[in-house]
Amino acid sequence: MALDLPALHAQLRAAAPLIQNITNTVVQQFSANVLLAVGAAPAMLDHEADAGQFAALADAILINFGTATNQQLLAADAAIRVAHRLRKPWVLDPVSVGVIAFRTERIRQAAENHPTVIRGNASEIAALAGQGAGGRGVDATDEVDAVLPAAMSLAQSTGAVVAVSGACDAIVDVSGSTVRVARVGGGHAFMPLVIGTGCSLGSLTAAYLAAVHAGKSAVPHGESHPGAFEAAIAAHAHFKLAGEAAGKTAAGPGSFAVAFIDALYTLRSEGMAHAQVHVEVREMPDSCGL
Amino acid sequence: MALDLPALHAQLRAAAPLIQNITNTVVQQFSANVLLAVGAAPAMLDHEADAGQFAALADAILINFGTATNQQLLAADAAIRVAHRLRKPWVLDPVSVGVIAFRTERIRQAAENHPTVIRGNASEIAALAGQGAGGRGVDATDEVDAVLPAAMSLAQSTGAVVAVSGACDAIVDVSGSTVRVARVGGGHAFMPLVIGTGCSLGSLTAAYLAAVHAGKSAVPHGESHPGAFEAAIAAHAHFKLAGEAAGKTAAGPGSFAVAFIDALYTLRSEGMAHAQVHVEVREMPDSCGL
Amino acid sequence: MALDLPALHAQLRAAAPLIQNITNTVVQQFSANVLLAVGAAPAMLDHEADAGQFAALADAILINFGTATNQQLLAADAAIRVAHRLRKPWVLDPVSVGVIAFRTERIRQAAENHPTVIRGNASEIAALAGQGAGGRGVDATDEVDAVLPAAMSLAQSTGAVVAVSGACDAIVDVSGSTVRVARVGGGHAFMPLVIGTGCSLGSLTAAYLAAVHAGKSAVPHGESHPGAFEAAIAAHAHFKLAGEAAGKTAAGPGSFAVAFIDALYTLRSEGMAHAQVHVEVREMPDSCGL
Repeated sequence: MALDLPALHAQLRAAAPLIQNITNTVVQQFSANVLLAVGAAPAMLDHEADAGQFAALADAILINFGTATNQQLLAADAAIRVAHRLRKPWVLDPVSVGVIAFRTERIRQAAENHPTVIRGNASEIAALAGQGAGGRGVDATDEVDAVLPAAMSLAQSTGAVVAVSGACDAIVDVSGSTVRVARVGGGHAFMPLVIGTGCSLGSLTAAYLAAVHAGKSAVPHGESHPGAFEAAIAAHAHFKLAGEAAGKTAAGPGSFAVAFIDALYTLRSEGMAHAQVHVEVREMPDSCGL
Repeated sequence: MALDLPALHAQLRAAAPLIQNITNTVVQQFSANVLLAVGAAPAMLDHEADAGQFAALADAILINFGTATNQQLLAADAAIRVAHRLRKPWVLDPVSVGVIAFRTERIRQAAENHPTVIRGNASEIAALAGQGAGGRGVDATDEVDAVLPAAMSLAQSTGAVVAVSGACDAIVDVSGSTVRVARVGGGHAFMPLVIGTGCSLGSLTAAYLAAVHAGKSAVPHGESHPGAFEAAIAAHAHFKLAGEAAGKTAAGPGSFAVAFIDALYTLRSEGMAHAQVHVEVREMPDSCGL
Repeated sequence: MALDLPALHAQLRAAAPLIQNITNTVVQQFSANVLLAVGAAPAMLDHEADAGQFAALADAILINFGTATNQQLLAADAAIRVAHRLRKPWVLDPVSVGVIAFRTERIRQAAENHPTVIRGNASEIAALAGQGAGGRGVDATDEVDAVLPAAMSLAQSTGAVVAVSGACDAIVDVSGSTVRVARVGGGHAFMPLVIGTGCSLGSLTAAYLAAVHAGKSAVPHGESHPGAFEAAIAAHAHFKLAGEAAGKTAAGPGSFAVAFIDALYTLRSEGMAHAQVHVEVREMPDSCGL
């Protein structure tokens, strides 16, 4: 699949996908507004009696255990089971993995259940790959470059596309001995000062996955979702472009957050052509080389 | 009771009612800010040990099961019991009814407990009336016009005023064989792109109910709250006017949400006279006519 | 410790402390954005299996039972235990104490566990001190001046610095028979119309406590945190200055909230010198004088 960002954006607007978000309560509002701004429909529900049934209706699912309760953990289990059974695309955001034991264990279990994309910051990706100690909460303390080997290793072991958010995002896809690495530049220094810019990027990634997946026949078990790499790149590019646009008028992180939602909305498909994206194909380094 | 929107607005500002919101976590912040902007006092609390006792202090109650947990469901039960016993006005928002089984059952039970107003989008009202399959999450897929018969039937069976939100809202009140239908126009296309504009309208409806109810003697059991129809119209008119005003300066849904809160606040009582409201009195169609 | 507000602000920016917030779901997003705007790192997590372990990593902790569930109450217990054992500074926000029985009992228990600062509105401080009936939810109904004796009594009985938010904040510290009372003026009338301005002030107080505490040796049990009085004043002054700045451009509470976050961010250390702060040292009145 070739990388045609304007076409992917047009697919997203046309699909208007329904995205189920089992996510932390801090970012629910912002994530919902991000999805609405790009033309997707958000749904949040945290009851285990609802979540599985809803997952069958949703076009894609985002799982983030940031403020998980026992009940939300059961809801996530139910949704992930359905996603796996019906081959729905889903995104895992391993927020705070590696920092505290209980949540780390739960995130590791989820990562074994075939997420389509794993999206986190550098510390989280390193910790989930078993390399590095995790961040301090939602904070990144490693650089994106430094964790590329960890991201490749995680992509290989889970079968997921792995996205590392940072000043210059990296999206990694491993297929056999071939690794594709996309880097996405742009954005603005205010982005990490607005809560939810990371978490809602996971929701947007789910929306692009749903758009790419729309109308396609079910992916056989054991095979990865075609177009997942491209969908993840499109989501990150859309975010960076909106961040850049918002940064031009913002006086601080408050006005930035407002302008960012506006910019996500006003971006046209042709505008996606201005994204700073570079894709490289490499050989997978052997484990000694990591 | 005549429909004097400026007077109703003045009553709301004078009453500064305390509104208990048992609502979904996605919209709690926005709903609280909506209430504060119009001069009401919001309170959110989701513990069953608190909710009943607080309901006795509150001037009106809003119930919305959007992200209900088992504990919040118990809290809602407790609050509804007190509302019924003390004849406090309360609003039911049947969000996502008809989409998933567990929540649909809980919403139906609540609807049987004498809500003063039921407020939802077209799909939700149709589903709660037993007609139509419900929306896909928080989304409306039916039009307001198409569900007017369902709204009338629901108003008749529950005794509640039924409000259907959409491009042109409908508020329906059935008394014997007489139906009053108010239509409220205005608003802006950005309103459905801001999460919580529907849910917080339920909170504002509760605030107007409290204002109309203030200082009145208790309504006997089995009778409907006088002024509930007018209060619901006022809330919807207030929202549409604020939406129109906000739409004049907004560059997208982000700046719209900010301007909307400002407009809710800056609207003066006399401004309510500009609302696009039309009230019609009809005969209740017999069930064959529906 | 002398009161050097610019130096305290510089300490905060340099420390970039990690603040654990066990707080109500209505204000989580706003509180996180407040902390990010001032250079601190927010973390919210409500699972009892996480909260204690995270408390050992956090630089300070904020506890607010606004929408507490059973699980969040357990999480708060775990975090408070660790805070006490490790002598971490922590802030108690007694939101709605005195209004409803269940929560009042839980807040009283927390207040006995050596909070470094207790921050509330006048009604809450009066109620927690056993004087007055509490507010109606998040609302203040008493004036700050009227509750100063209650604040002194609460400071004496708990060992905490007690901060009373209002049009002119009061921060009270009792040491033996000496009482220090700081008054902080400024701010703007829109502040109480934005949900979370009170709750997030508790988070900011925790951040200043962490900054003052950073690099210091552990405080022996039974002694109060040095600099807690000054840290609380700095947080309140920072807020009032940002409120004043935001009020200059705001058209209503919506645009005020946005400008307030911008102003928290853009305030420079030297700007803190413009705070309206007055500190007075008095003799502790005997109990008959109260």
